[in-house]
Amino acid sequence: MPTPMRDIARILREHDDIAVLSHENPDGDAVGSAAALGHILARLGKRFVLANASPLPGQFSWMDIPGPWTTAMPAVYGYAVALDCGDGPRLGALEKAVDPTRLCVIDHHLGNPGFGAVNWVDTAASSTGEMVAALADELGVPLDGGLGECLYVAMVTDTGDFSFSSTRPETLELAARILRAGLDLGQTNARLRNQWSLSRIRLWSEVMGGMTLHSGGVIGSIAISRETMARTGTSVEDCDGLVNWVLRVRGVRAAVAVRELPDGRIKFSLRSVGDVDVQRVAASFGGGGHKNASGGSLDGPLAAAEATLAAAVGASLGV
Amino acid sequence: MPTPMRDIARILREHDDIAVLSHENPDGDAVGSAAALGHILARLGKRFVLANASPLPGQFSWMDIPGPWTTAMPAVYGYAVALDCGDGPRLGALEKAVDPTRLCVIDHHLGNPGFGAVNWVDTAASSTGEMVAALADELGVPLDGGLGECLYVAMVTDTGDFSFSSTRPETLELAARILRAGLDLGQTNARLRNQWSLSRIRLWSEVMGGMTLHSGGVIGSIAISRETMARTGTSVEDCDGLVNWVLRVRGVRAAVAVRELPDGRIKFSLRSVGDVDVQRVAASFGGGGHKNASGGSLDGPLAAAEATLAAAVGASLGV
Repeated sequence: MPTPMRDIARILREHDDIAVLSHENPDGDAVGSAAALGHILARLGKRFVLANASPLPGQFSWMDIPGPWTTAMPAVYGYAVALDCGDGPRLGALEKAVDPTRLCVIDHHLGNPGFGAVNWVDTAASSTGEMVAALADELGVPLDGGLGECLYVAMVTDTGDFSFSSTRPETLELAARILRAGLDLGQTNARLRNQWSLSRIRLWSEVMGGMTLHSGGVIGSIAISRETMARTGTSVEDCDGLVNWVLRVRGVRAAVAVRELPDGRIKFSLRSVGDVDVQRVAASFGGGGHKNASGGSLDGPLAAAEATLAAAVGASLGV
Repeated sequence: MPTPMRDIARILREHDDIAVLSHENPDGDAVGSAAALGHILARLGKRFVLANASPLPGQFSWMDIPGPWTTAMPAVYGYAVALDCGDGPRLGALEKAVDPTRLCVIDHHLGNPGFGAVNWVDTAASSTGEMVAALADELGVPLDGGLGECLYVAMVTDTGDFSFSSTRPETLELAARILRAGLDLGQTNARLRNQWSLSRIRLWSEVMGGMTLHSGGVIGSIAISRETMARTGTSVEDCDGLVNWVLRVRGVRAAVAVRELPDGRIKFSLRSVGDVDVQRVAASFGGGGHKNASGGSLDGPLAAAEATLAAAVGASLGV
């Protein structure tokens, strides 16, 4: 067992009034790992609060969240634990209210600077939830009930339904243990997946229907206009994941998505598979990111930005 | 170990020239489990053919299929093994060429009548691939290379990415073993998922964009016209799975999909979640199926059929 994990387990045993934090605009791993730690603390008889700069997203409202979900740091707390936060700023508005000398960090993000007093960062873990499960083992808490479900949600969402290469044998074995402990996997997945609004369906239909292929089908692009979003009654969160669908098309190795911002500027996202490096293209427009996922912003209009980016990606690919 | 599995293992050890069969219009489990058995036979030094009434679907063309995939029964064979076939007619045009006294059946479908000389039917298995993995263990063949990949494809496709309630702890543990044996899970999933044609994207966009909610959002319906399919250049296989997307909408408990056939008749599919029984509705229109998945056909026109079915499902739900 890693030493920082044992240190965190000891701190949780010895202290009370724990503030359980996760990154703002929380995804399934942030919600799931924080709620899971709440379940562990509840079973240890500890007082705790789940605090996040953002309210609990509606898509996770069905989950067994232990206790209220607050959007402010408690005035008084013993220790804080930040889960799934790659750095301090990811805590959003809560960051300035946290005392770093009483902060534990549990995270799996590459490049986490270790912004707490105790930092347990395991970049090999597929999700922070996977790490919280190990902490539960260390603390002798079985992975059943709400704890099992929260851990499962954290794992399954951060691994793309166990499809990303971050999925380890240990990940699947942990999911099997949670299943053996009683998880209703079919029901949990149905709840997790069936949270689309009809507005979101309309947005996706329209945007995907307008997909364009470039360079003989090696590059695909989509555009999301302010007009489409207004007419379908959708918001930024409804655009999450759209760009990944472009990669679903056979032969597409790089995807471009452009979205019109309220001020008329264009936000762009680039995705690629395997060896194709879109980070350099993003950087040439002042953006950033990683080899297979990057982005930035540029001037409009929308259609011109889409064409410019598709051409730039094509040039970088030599197609 | 179940006795029929041991009998099949013994037959495969003692005979040569094995015809490996699976159901026509094969899905991931049919292709994966048949190809996996081929890998096992190859490692045992046996001659074999993979025979199916349908050609290998293009979406699986990237797989490591051991040997050619033929659409006719070989003129001479020692034993045949039918994989993932719920009954004899599922073999399609091959059925009449198979000698049932030299046929082994490996299947997980409920209601399989046992149409071979040796019948190993395990309805608790999430996929036929899961059963073939047990057979590989019995025959001492490690789950690595192409065998591991074929087994994984069978499992992951038949369990909806390990999301259906048929997913057992054993299923996930088996996937973990295949991972430990060297499977590149990220690459396999990328290949498996990124097989859409732009035509299929256009079809889905248009059909999903026309989704209608009924009865206060408890029922959703979609319609697929001949005109849409002709214009997008799509075929029946491109419609597979569309109806399941209707259930993705929050609050929808029953989904109706109608599709215009070349002769103007309407094929319908009904899906539901939990306790909602759509089989009775299907039966009232002369159709059949199960509680949560059923279908049939009725007269057109398309829009009238969609409205009639949505109303019938609503009436059965009392909404």
